[in-house]
Amino acid sequence: MTTPRRGRPGYDLESLLMVAVKLFNERGYDGTSMEDLSRKLGITKSAIYHHVPSKEELLRLAVDRALDGLFEVASETAQLDGRAIDRLEHLVRGSVLVLADRLPFVTLLLRVRGNTKVERAALARRREFDRLVTDLVKQAEAEGDIRPDVDPAVTARLLFGMVNSLIEWYRPRRGSAAEVADAVCKVAFEGLRTGS
Amino acid sequence: MTTPRRGRPGYDLESLLMVAVKLFNERGYDGTSMEDLSRKLGITKSAIYHHVPSKEELLRLAVDRALDGLFEVASETAQLDGRAIDRLEHLVRGSVLVLADRLPFVTLLLRVRGNTKVERAALARRREFDRLVTDLVKQAEAEGDIRPDVDPAVTARLLFGMVNSLIEWYRPRRGSAAEVADAVCKVAFEGLRTGS
Repeated sequence: MTTPRRGRPGYDLESLLMVAVKLFNERGYDGTSMEDLSRKLGITKSAIYHHVPSKEELLRLAVDRALDGLFEVASETAQLDGRAIDRLEHLVRGSVLVLADRLPFVTLLLRVRGNTKVERAALARRREFDRLVTDLVKQAEAEGDIRPDVDPAVTARLLFGMVNSLIEWYRPRRGSAAEVADAVCKVAFEGLRTGS
Repeated sequence: MTTPRRGRPGYDLESLLMVAVKLFNERGYDGTSMEDLSRKLGITKSAIYHHVPSKEELLRLAVDRALDGLFEVASETAQLDGRAIDRLEHLVRGSVLVLADRLPFVTLLLRVRGNTKVERAALARRREFDRLVTDLVKQAEAEGDIRPDVDPAVTARLLFGMVNSLIEWYRPRRGSAAEVADAVCKVAFEGLRTGS
């Protein structure tokens, strides 16, 4: 839903959201007021409210951008045939690409603590995603493709510990997202040790 | 340095620090005032200042608790003989044990953003630790023990992405720290895939 633009030219909902997410990541969501955002944008608070009804709605739009990307990859994965380990690798690879592409949104998502309704809903969707990963690990283990000596929930968390660490260190100049996705899959599935 | 205890009985510097770190982790360091801390402890601010000169000093004590643990493991590692990959495994295993043992302190450390002198010093020590890890990965690669097809800096970050993810999910009831350390080393060094 788009509405005619008002206030300082140059901001639509999308560019306003980008600035808001950057500010939330710098100062924390709780630590950022609509006043701060208005100062940063150089437009009045009422110009912001013209685009979006509340700070919480900005948060919702931002975390959903991250979650929608991850769940799109998850539904692609669910439609694949073949072995669970290959579907798991597809999910890991696709998640890395989503993180690299939507880095500020995923960064915000991973810092959400659950103090508001929007945050609790985001945490619930994250848990749902984690369950999908754990289920794939279990299936792959049942098919004999994943080592059975590590608890599948722990395996799933370590796997996404690697993926999620991208928010701390990935910068496009460090290599393409596809290269990083390859690196994650090599390390996670084949291990660091040569000839292992 | 200990000083005679004043204020409500039951708090010494150590127990005061535990409560402060818990509060910093819940509300963010910036979002927590000495007023908040005094309310949480049920003692006056001047009773807190009797133990510690400032909020920043509490932060310094807390992040140093985490960093000192990690650097103790690093110096142990540096004194080992043998192949770099075995030293790297020792460092990973030891780091997991430090994280599990000092979880609230490491959690705070990993969230530090660098807005104050103490935070910048902590970030500088983290970078020094990261360099030690990257150097070990490079050595192990030069010795032919680590796959040469992933950039050593990326490998180091993925490895500690797994380790650091513990702050998000590790709880002692999920298994002993030693079991988790085993799991991390199996997944990281040998890979998920059976027969890989």
